[in-house]
Amino acid sequence: MDMAAGILAGDMRALARGLTLVEERLPGARELCVKLAPHTGRALRVGVTGAPGAGKSTLIDALIRAARARGERVAVLAVDPSSPRTGGALLGDRVRMTSHANDDGVFVRSMASRGALGALAPNAGEALDLFDAAGFTLLFVESVGAGQADVDIAAESDITLVLSAPGGGDSIQAMKSGILEIADLWVVSKGDNPQAAALKHELLAMLALGGADQLEERVCVVAALANQGVEELLAKMLAAGAAARADGAFAARRRQRVRRRILAAAAELCAEKLPTDTPLLTELEARIRAGDLSVVGAARALLSGGNV
Amino acid sequence: MDMAAGILAGDMRALARGLTLVEERLPGARELCVKLAPHTGRALRVGVTGAPGAGKSTLIDALIRAARARGERVAVLAVDPSSPRTGGALLGDRVRMTSHANDDGVFVRSMASRGALGALAPNAGEALDLFDAAGFTLLFVESVGAGQADVDIAAESDITLVLSAPGGGDSIQAMKSGILEIADLWVVSKGDNPQAAALKHELLAMLALGGADQLEERVCVVAALANQGVEELLAKMLAAGAAARADGAFAARRRQRVRRRILAAAAELCAEKLPTDTPLLTELEARIRAGDLSVVGAARALLSGGNV
Repeated sequence: MDMAAGILAGDMRALARGLTLVEERLPGARELCVKLAPHTGRALRVGVTGAPGAGKSTLIDALIRAARARGERVAVLAVDPSSPRTGGALLGDRVRMTSHANDDGVFVRSMASRGALGALAPNAGEALDLFDAAGFTLLFVESVGAGQADVDIAAESDITLVLSAPGGGDSIQAMKSGILEIADLWVVSKGDNPQAAALKHELLAMLALGGADQLEERVCVVAALANQGVEELLAKMLAAGAAARADGAFAARRRQRVRRRILAAAAELCAEKLPTDTPLLTELEARIRAGDLSVVGAARALLSGGNV
Repeated sequence: MDMAAGILAGDMRALARGLTLVEERLPGARELCVKLAPHTGRALRVGVTGAPGAGKSTLIDALIRAARARGERVAVLAVDPSSPRTGGALLGDRVRMTSHANDDGVFVRSMASRGALGALAPNAGEALDLFDAAGFTLLFVESVGAGQADVDIAAESDITLVLSAPGGGDSIQAMKSGILEIADLWVVSKGDNPQAAALKHELLAMLALGGADQLEERVCVVAALANQGVEELLAKMLAAGAAARADGAFAARRRQRVRRRILAAAAELCAEKLPTDTPLLTELEARIRAGDLSVVGAARALLSGGNV
């Protein structure tokens, strides 16, 4: 049986091998994605973001348990910012959710972001497609929240959760990072912490200031370890997914995702073609330092092969 | 007096106007950068990164005080991840270091990252050039630490500091984000916290594992609010700067920065030329969903105007 057929039949070893192909961009990855594309678009994709220590892994762990009780098949893609020097993630699946290791309705995979043109590798979306084609119905994609990674996660997800933890002393910092605005649902984690209520009020005030609507429904307080609020959050997520499927937002988002991937791949093809070590580049660099040429002027010259 | 001459003469209002030109990419920005380029390369550029709540602003505030006592003129560029929806930073200079407001040897400026092709806007480097040309001798560029932003900050800086705070419960998470490897100096902040010594040991162990050398000298424990270790850290930074100037590393890094900016501008020019809403793009997107074409194939077709 070939790999695509194996994945469609729910063979987990074929899925694992396929994910490696996609992550490493090995030969066969492209062909695999082409074959699986018509079989994607069924799963609900949920992006989970928030600062380090906000409790993302703990929340996902609790949501997996609740989703399994409802019969969902759950896959998690944990995107770790990769090291600029080694090109790989420093820690992988080792320290991640291991409590579902014996449940074949749960699949957890870590992936390093390559950081080429953004914080989320374009192949993270392809990995989600593989989960989708393999019959998982609820997909989580998790990343450390900051800047570009969040925007990328929101673009690859149907629903985005943003987590904040009380008592971190950095609530203002979390807000200034702009990650609030990409969320569909805001989650205050560690809800049994005495400062959780204050953080919820702070969030509601910030969001009202920003003009967001239906706030009381969209800000959730969850104590994942005590299993408080988890079932309610999952119900909201699934309801939002069902509503988006009914009104066509789901299909539109899927088209946008494909379009976005084409444009990202095209931008990358362009960037790859640029010469990085030519006498022309050295000359242009010296002219900029001498005050003789602008950076954009030099970029144009580089693209046109030297005609300034 | 024109703007470039004003900046070179140390006119702070000309500098502020110039920074706005550069940040907003207004007419005249390019010409200004060309004029100032020959007058840059004197200041020491220090990148400061670390997770939200690690104490970056507090440390910089203390370093400014110590540097002023040595006669340095100090400028700070605080890069805030911008909101994907509004395109601007949610909070600006308002909550930032205000204790130096009456000292004309200190200049603090916030800038939103635009997130185009990375977390740090290319014009952040140009803003640092303006500070440099205006006669500031020590420049700090600060950003929330995660993935691409850190790599960008390291590339635009002569020295990079990475901060970690003890007791955040996320020391493993900070390590896995890979930001440790871009640092020249590692700073354990909140050094009067009882857990600071443990974090220092954890850092030393991680770094030794990664093959880093001169660790005892490069890991600093600082209690900025109690003014402990600040002077020592500043002395290390200035000594590293002087050494790099003497052995030519400083000049080489400056050439690399200019080269990197040319390539980034060229990649951006390429990406801007891509059509984002054409019948061809719609057709390619539908063919991908049908399992008829790969994303890279579609990207090639888009670049060649439709020849698949």
